[in-house]
Amino acid sequence: MTSASNPTPLDSLDTPCLLLDETRMTHNIQRLKALMAKHGVQLRPHLKTPKSIDVARRVMSSPQGPAAVSTLQEAEQFAAAGVTDLLYAVGVSPGKLARVLALRGRGVDVTIVVDSIDAAEMVAAQTKASGVRLPALIEIDCDGHRAGVQPDNHEHLLAIAQVLAQADCLRGVMTHAGESYGCRSLEAIADMAEQERAAAVGCADAIRAAGLPCPVVSVGSTPTAHFARSLAGVTEVRAGVYVFFDLVMAGLGVCSVDDIAATVLTTVIGHQPDKGWILVDAGWMAMSRDRGTAKQPVDQLYGLVCDAQGKVYPDLLLAETNQEQGIIKLRAGSGASLPDLPLGTKLRIVPNHACATCAQHDAYHVVRAGEQGVVARWDRFRGW
Amino acid sequence: MTSASNPTPLDSLDTPCLLLDETRMTHNIQRLKALMAKHGVQLRPHLKTPKSIDVARRVMSSPQGPAAVSTLQEAEQFAAAGVTDLLYAVGVSPGKLARVLALRGRGVDVTIVVDSIDAAEMVAAQTKASGVRLPALIEIDCDGHRAGVQPDNHEHLLAIAQVLAQADCLRGVMTHAGESYGCRSLEAIADMAEQERAAAVGCADAIRAAGLPCPVVSVGSTPTAHFARSLAGVTEVRAGVYVFFDLVMAGLGVCSVDDIAATVLTTVIGHQPDKGWILVDAGWMAMSRDRGTAKQPVDQLYGLVCDAQGKVYPDLLLAETNQEQGIIKLRAGSGASLPDLPLGTKLRIVPNHACATCAQHDAYHVVRAGEQGVVARWDRFRGW
Repeated sequence: MTSASNPTPLDSLDTPCLLLDETRMTHNIQRLKALMAKHGVQLRPHLKTPKSIDVARRVMSSPQGPAAVSTLQEAEQFAAAGVTDLLYAVGVSPGKLARVLALRGRGVDVTIVVDSIDAAEMVAAQTKASGVRLPALIEIDCDGHRAGVQPDNHEHLLAIAQVLAQADCLRGVMTHAGESYGCRSLEAIADMAEQERAAAVGCADAIRAAGLPCPVVSVGSTPTAHFARSLAGVTEVRAGVYVFFDLVMAGLGVCSVDDIAATVLTTVIGHQPDKGWILVDAGWMAMSRDRGTAKQPVDQLYGLVCDAQGKVYPDLLLAETNQEQGIIKLRAGSGASLPDLPLGTKLRIVPNHACATCAQHDAYHVVRAGEQGVVARWDRFRGW
Repeated sequence: MTSASNPTPLDSLDTPCLLLDETRMTHNIQRLKALMAKHGVQLRPHLKTPKSIDVARRVMSSPQGPAAVSTLQEAEQFAAAGVTDLLYAVGVSPGKLARVLALRGRGVDVTIVVDSIDAAEMVAAQTKASGVRLPALIEIDCDGHRAGVQPDNHEHLLAIAQVLAQADCLRGVMTHAGESYGCRSLEAIADMAEQERAAAVGCADAIRAAGLPCPVVSVGSTPTAHFARSLAGVTEVRAGVYVFFDLVMAGLGVCSVDDIAATVLTTVIGHQPDKGWILVDAGWMAMSRDRGTAKQPVDQLYGLVCDAQGKVYPDLLLAETNQEQGIIKLRAGSGASLPDLPLGTKLRIVPNHACATCAQHDAYHVVRAGEQGVVARWDRFRGW
């Protein structure tokens, strides 16, 4: 982390660049922390969103974790920074086990995820061959979203559990209600949270009824984590994007636009006055091509446009993007008028999807409520 | 550049990663080079696609250029590698001129682009204040795609030209037929190329008729560069994505799928046999969220699936992506059968948009026809 003794004025930053409002981030972190404390369940923040050691230290409950990651590069980077309790929450392939074993050999408690007999046998064989135990969670498919064992297929579940247990590798179950991103109401999100909980707890119960251990019952997505009615039987909740939030989460009602902590600072580079267009230097390279709100009732195109201080202009959208240019327009049918934004004006764009937009940048430029300028620069990493 | 004395087997690479078929790339480079030689027009390759010094040296006609770039970071990186003739082909804002002046002060001939009186006055004022001339092209809007002066608005064009010429900064005109990506036939692309040429040449003629200089007439996009019937009056053609090509270009008929040089190597990490899904470790982080073929007659979803050697599986698509997982499915309605691809199998994915997919990676892993494994690693850069 680089901390500026004197804040850097926004106007002096090269654009496009990524801004992070630490005040909003802290509010988001505290909100979910308080909720999990009320449920009495451990939070395992997913660090695939920030990919930053400075953010990780603020979002984790201790410098050692726990945390979840989506790549071995994340696992290695956070382990090097002192995190010792990591869930690698993506199905593992044979070629990746050497790096997992290397981390475990260094005393990092990395848990992996499997959802088939083949994968369980691979884990058991590697444990036997290396002498290093590879603890694993069995992934459950609670909503047809992605990977995992069907929650009512106990025969399959127990066959995997047996293979893992015989190698002393069975640590529990995990599931992720990815379909919660498609919910249309907070009620539907709460129902999805219950579906997620019931799938995981039901499978854990089945494993225990077969006389096998299942200490961990891990669930989570940002929407379900915030609106679960009950987490009975769950031992930990995972969530990632809540640390920054974004327009997809605001569209779902999980947060408000004013909670969104990560934005892209951009500069006006031209105008097409006859068309009502303002051109800026934030194209898809700076925003990503993510258009998550396209499937929501209100499509925010490539993002909401704010002034340099973060105040949203009514109905002003980043409507189209080329590689290094964006076109700002008023929302179709809007009664608002196009603001006068001369060449060189700085603006902020609120993104659809924080994970995707932040991934386009190498650093966060940190700002705080009530303070002028950038107070710190926090590096991000990427790769696999 | 790192050249491996012994090729690295594909199976030993950490996935996902970016592969570059140098044999195909060389073919693509030679094809456009030969075409431009036939037209007798200089080619100015756009280096925003490769963002790599190793690729740049292979695509440029000399180690000094000429070349086009889309960011000042690209300009600075290529200048540091010895390129001295650069067009910064995106509208410039006041805050960016210091970096342009610094490059020109080091003897790098950077040309900038303006499309308004405001921008021209800014360039003239900076030239006067710094004593360093800032040569500029006036951008022409040949197809309503983005920025630029309307080609029939000669009053506006000449007003800008006068401001630039008085400061000795007028170097010519440029345009880009971005709408050619939406053409539905090679005939339509050829028509668009003529529209692009006519707009640029017409504006150059108007500037010259007013007694002002206009040595440069710069046009180009990958589709129009390949199918222009005439380039009479044009002094240089810009094109970028042709060096690698991609599924969008194949869908347009500009290339065949077998010409596509950049692919993503991925590994099978799971299966959902009941659904006919194969899960891989290439999600949107590795592919980008670009879905350029969604608007084409044949939607290739997130990409075509090939075996590790690059042979396309019939109708097999990367259909959905999460951050670090992709779901492979057969095309809807296909009569093909799902291949048996066990856990750990390596596959290649052919992307929608090479610029966007390559931008997700830090290096090219270079392969060649008839050779096994990766023969070199070429670094990419990013940022602004």
